[in-house]
Amino acid sequence: MEKKSTLTNEEKETFMRAAIEEAKKAQALDEVPIGAVVVWNKKIIGRGYNLRETTQDATTHAEMMAIQEACRQVNNFRLEEAQLFVTLEPCPMCSGAILLSRIEEVYFGAYDPKAGAAGSLMNLLEDQRFNHWCYLESRILQEECGQLLTTFFRELRQRKKEEKAKRKENNKKD
Amino acid sequence: MEKKSTLTNEEKETFMRAAIEEAKKAQALDEVPIGAVVVWNKKIIGRGYNLRETTQDATTHAEMMAIQEACRQVNNFRLEEAQLFVTLEPCPMCSGAILLSRIEEVYFGAYDPKAGAAGSLMNLLEDQRFNHWCYLESRILQEECGQLLTTFFRELRQRKKEEKAKRKENNKKD
Repeated sequence: MEKKSTLTNEEKETFMRAAIEEAKKAQALDEVPIGAVVVWNKKIIGRGYNLRETTQDATTHAEMMAIQEACRQVNNFRLEEAQLFVTLEPCPMCSGAILLSRIEEVYFGAYDPKAGAAGSLMNLLEDQRFNHWCYLESRILQEECGQLLTTFFRELRQRKKEEKAKRKENNKKD
Repeated sequence: MEKKSTLTNEEKETFMRAAIEEAKKAQALDEVPIGAVVVWNKKIIGRGYNLRETTQDATTHAEMMAIQEACRQVNNFRLEEAQLFVTLEPCPMCSGAILLSRIEEVYFGAYDPKAGAAGSLMNLLEDQRFNHWCYLESRILQEECGQLLTTFFRELRQRKKEEKAKRKENNKKD
């Protein structure tokens, strides 16, 4: 069965911008900048950003936080007719959570070739062997979503390089 | 790279019995009876049971609860050298969480032919394209783990049948 998007291109960009705002909150905490929102009836009912280092809990991905808030908002684990926007392609955990919460439409920005489970390594979201599957669309504000990550990792490498040089310098002095 | 179990058969049964005890806590709340424990250095550091109906949050599977408690216990999202025991084959979400938290060994009881992601529909836990994979063993106390679920669903069907008959009876009286 073919599934369809219920949003205009303008709406898609608006909600992806909201997900990017969430990603920037992660960045401000030195977390890998990934953000997500859950939308229902054209309103955001859940927001989340990656908090793995802060919480020291590997399950605190952006999508999980957004889904959990959305479930609390509607007091229902079934988020039928909802849309999820996320800046990076969901991993297997988040794709599984999307299926379990019956989210209808998923939009992501950049592809994750190393761990993506919505097209890169596999496609869990459109696997019709499960009791639910999604409408899936990628590359929404792809460049902006990807750039956030590229910049973050470039700065991280630079910082590590500088720290290494500093340690070397200190060792010489000893 | 071949991975190996670090536990004796007796230890495996002991920890699966602890997971079964967790499943019974779910059952007592009228939740689908699935339980899990995370083990580290031969000690249980995380316990969890399915709470989906109670919390109205689809992410509250037994494994997720056990992993989250274990991360809090060791204050680290990396549960390297840890084992996870769960009464039912993990779904994609929980398999993903297992990989993200770097759990080393996974033991489950019964297979889940409809949604299992550790051998039934797919095998995420041994997929070497991810940056982590697990030692995986199934059928630990399989019969006991499966029986819990069979009994739960049989009783649920019976109850629904009785309720339906009651409603029919009441309609006749009106």
